[in-house]
Amino acid sequence: MVRELAARAKRAAARMAAAGGRAKKTALLAAARLLEEEKDALLAANAEDLRAAREAGLAGAKYDRLRLDEKTLKTLQAGLRQLAEAPEVVGEIAEMRTLENGLQVGRMRVPLGLVGFIYESRPGATVEAAGLVVKSGNAILLRGGKEAIRSNTALVGVLRRALREAGLPEDAVTLVPTTDREAVLEMLKLSEFIDVMIPRGGDALIRLVTEHARMPVLFHAKGVNHLYVDEDAELEMAVRLAVNGKVQRPGVCNALETLLVHERVAEAFLPPLAEAMFAHGVELRGDEAARALVPEMKPATEEDWAAEYLDLILAVRVVPDMEAALAHIETYGTRHTEVIVTENYDRALRFLREVDASLVLVNASPRLNDGFQLGLGAEIGISTTKLHAYGPMGVRELTTTKWVGLGSGQVRE
Amino acid sequence: MVRELAARAKRAAARMAAAGGRAKKTALLAAARLLEEEKDALLAANAEDLRAAREAGLAGAKYDRLRLDEKTLKTLQAGLRQLAEAPEVVGEIAEMRTLENGLQVGRMRVPLGLVGFIYESRPGATVEAAGLVVKSGNAILLRGGKEAIRSNTALVGVLRRALREAGLPEDAVTLVPTTDREAVLEMLKLSEFIDVMIPRGGDALIRLVTEHARMPVLFHAKGVNHLYVDEDAELEMAVRLAVNGKVQRPGVCNALETLLVHERVAEAFLPPLAEAMFAHGVELRGDEAARALVPEMKPATEEDWAAEYLDLILAVRVVPDMEAALAHIETYGTRHTEVIVTENYDRALRFLREVDASLVLVNASPRLNDGFQLGLGAEIGISTTKLHAYGPMGVRELTTTKWVGLGSGQVRE
Repeated sequence: MVRELAARAKRAAARMAAAGGRAKKTALLAAARLLEEEKDALLAANAEDLRAAREAGLAGAKYDRLRLDEKTLKTLQAGLRQLAEAPEVVGEIAEMRTLENGLQVGRMRVPLGLVGFIYESRPGATVEAAGLVVKSGNAILLRGGKEAIRSNTALVGVLRRALREAGLPEDAVTLVPTTDREAVLEMLKLSEFIDVMIPRGGDALIRLVTEHARMPVLFHAKGVNHLYVDEDAELEMAVRLAVNGKVQRPGVCNALETLLVHERVAEAFLPPLAEAMFAHGVELRGDEAARALVPEMKPATEEDWAAEYLDLILAVRVVPDMEAALAHIETYGTRHTEVIVTENYDRALRFLREVDASLVLVNASPRLNDGFQLGLGAEIGISTTKLHAYGPMGVRELTTTKWVGLGSGQVRE
Repeated sequence: MVRELAARAKRAAARMAAAGGRAKKTALLAAARLLEEEKDALLAANAEDLRAAREAGLAGAKYDRLRLDEKTLKTLQAGLRQLAEAPEVVGEIAEMRTLENGLQVGRMRVPLGLVGFIYESRPGATVEAAGLVVKSGNAILLRGGKEAIRSNTALVGVLRRALREAGLPEDAVTLVPTTDREAVLEMLKLSEFIDVMIPRGGDALIRLVTEHARMPVLFHAKGVNHLYVDEDAELEMAVRLAVNGKVQRPGVCNALETLLVHERVAEAFLPPLAEAMFAHGVELRGDEAARALVPEMKPATEEDWAAEYLDLILAVRVVPDMEAALAHIETYGTRHTEVIVTENYDRALRFLREVDASLVLVNASPRLNDGFQLGLGAEIGISTTKLHAYGPMGVRELTTTKWVGLGSGQVRE
C-alpha cells in the first residue's frame, strides 16, 4: 500500500517539476488561506490527538510539541506566505559561460523528485515540509508519528485542497496513513520512487533509517555543540552567549551542551557564568579545574563530554590552549554547531577554517543554526551529512543542478 | 588490513584539509615532474601488467585501456600542471551577507574528507583521481583492478613521493594492495573513515558498491544517451553530431546509443545518416518506419531501446512528435546525456527544461559530457545520482560548504 502511494506521489513529482512559479505561488497562498478557514476543524483534530496522548500518559516536552494552537497556525500561515513570495529557484541557470568552442554551458536548478519525510510529533512540521517541497517543485511522502496522526491527516487534507485549487496534483503531498514500523521499513526500500529520505527525530529513528534506507539520506544525528571561551574573549559577551545557547530553548539540537574555557580566563569567567546559569536553574558538571573555581559544580565524567543533554545541564571544561579546545571538539563534537568567543583576529579565523561543523560561529549563539535565522526562510531539517547539504535545509537544498548546453554544432575533436 | 590503511588515510585527510594552497601546488608540480623522471620505471611496471594480461588472454578494448605510454604520461603531467595552476577553492566563502541582526554569514568551501575510489583497468585514472583529491584538500583510498596492480603501485609510489616533497602526508594517496573482492567489501563497510565512495566501472561493480556501501555513493550506472532530430533540425548538422556521438569513441559512457527522429523529416534525414554511419562501419537497428526508409537496417527489438552498446551499433526510432521523443527518453534514458537538434526556439528551451539528465544539450555532441570538455579541468567520474553532484565530478564536486558566521554577540531572541 505504501508502494502504491509512493508510485502516485512520484508521478505527481514529475508534474510538480514542470509546474510554473505562478501555480506554486497560488497553491502556497491557498494553503495559508485554508489554514485560517479550516482552523476549527484543524484544532478539533489536534484536540483529539492531545486527548489520546494524555490517555496514553504522554507528558512534558513531548506533549507540548504535539499541541497546535491559533498562534502556531498563524506562524505556519506566515511561513507559507513568505515562501509564496520568495523568488522562484527552479529553472535558474547559474555560471553560464561560453567555452572556447562556442558552446554555452551552465547549471540549471532542478527539483530532486520525491522526498521521503519521516518525522516525530510536532504537526507544524507537516506544513513547513510540504511548503518547502511545493516551492522547490518536488513531491513529498510524509510519515508522521502516531500521536499526531489526526492532526497530520487534517493538515494534509488542507494542503491537498490547496494544490487542487492551483491546478497542481494533490498527490504531491501524500501522507502514509499507517504509523507502524512496517510502513517505515517499506518506505526505506522504495528507492525507485523516493529520491531522498529525510528523517527527523531521535537517535533510534535516525539509526533505523540510515541502516535500512536504499536511497540517499540527509539527517543530523545529534548536536553536541561547544562554545569555546578564548583567552581574549569579552567575558560578559561570553556569559550572554552561553546562557542564550543553554537556556533559550534547551530541548533542541542547536542548544549548547559543553563549554570550554581557556585556563588563563577561567578564574575571571567561571564564577559569573555559574551565577548566571544557576539563576536559570542550570546544573553545571565540570572537570577538576572548573570545580576548583566553582565548587557547586558536580563532577563531569567521560560520558558528560559526549552527552546531548537537551536539558538544563551544561558540561564545563578548562583547557590549556586553543589546540586542546580544537582537539576536544574534534573528539566529541557531532559537526552540528561550534562557537568561539574571542577578540583575537588570528584565532577567530583559524577556528572558522579548522572546525568541521555545519555552522561555525565567532561571537554568536549556537541557537542561530536554523534555516529561518540564517535567512533561508524555512527548513525541513538540519543536515550534518556533508554531502549535498551541510546545515539547515531550505528550498535550495531540496534541489540539484543539471548541466545545460546551448550549441551550434559543437563536436568532440 | 584495509581498515588500518583507511584509518591512516583518514588522519592524512585532516592534515590535507588544513594544508595551504602553496603546498598542494608544490605536490602537484612535483608529481608532474616525477612522472617524467620515473618514466622508465613506470613504463616497465606497465609492461609487466601488459604481459600478464596477454598471458591471461585479455584483448581488445580492455587490453588497450591498460596501456600506459609516453603520450599518456605527457597528458597526465599536463593535467597535473593545469590543476596546480587552477585557483584554490578550499576556503573560498560564497554568498557572504549581513543579516538584520548584524551577523555576517556565508558558505565556506571545505573538503569532504576521505574519498574511496574503486575503479577498473585504466591506470591513468589513478593519477587523475589523486590529482583532483590533492587539489581539493582530501585524501583518497584507491582500489584498482588486478590487471593494473603493478602500474598502479608504481604510480602511487610517485604520487606519495611528491606529497612528501611538499611536506604533505603521503597517506593522503593510499593504494589498497590486494585486489580481491573481499577488500572491496571491507572498504564498503568503513563508513567511519570513508566519507564518500566513488565506483567507476561496469554494471556489476556499480551494483556491488551501491548494495553494500554504508557511506554515500556517487556514480553513474550507464549512459543510454539519445539524440532527437526535431522537425526543424538542420539535417546536415544532425548527421555530423550523430556521427561524432557514435563513432568518435564508441566504448565510453557519453557515446550516442539511440537516435530519435521526427517523422516529418525522417525521409530526408535517415538515408544520408545511414550512408555516413555505414561509412564508419556502424550497424543500424531501426523500428519499422525507419527500416521502410533504410532497408539495410536490422530490426530493433525492445532490448535495443534499453541497450548501452558501447560499440559501433545505433538504435533508430521514428517518433510522431516531440512528446513521443520525451516519453521515450523518460522511459529508456539513464539521466546521463540527452541531445536535441533543432532550430526551433520553444522546443529547444522546452527540451532543456523538461529532460532530466546530468547534461542536456541543444545542437551539440553528447561526447561533450566530460569534465575537461565542460571546463572543470579534470574529472574523477560522472555522477547521475542527482544528490550532491549531477554530471562530471571535478575539484568542486569533491568539496562541500559549511556555514560560517562572524558575530558581535548575536543571540536568539
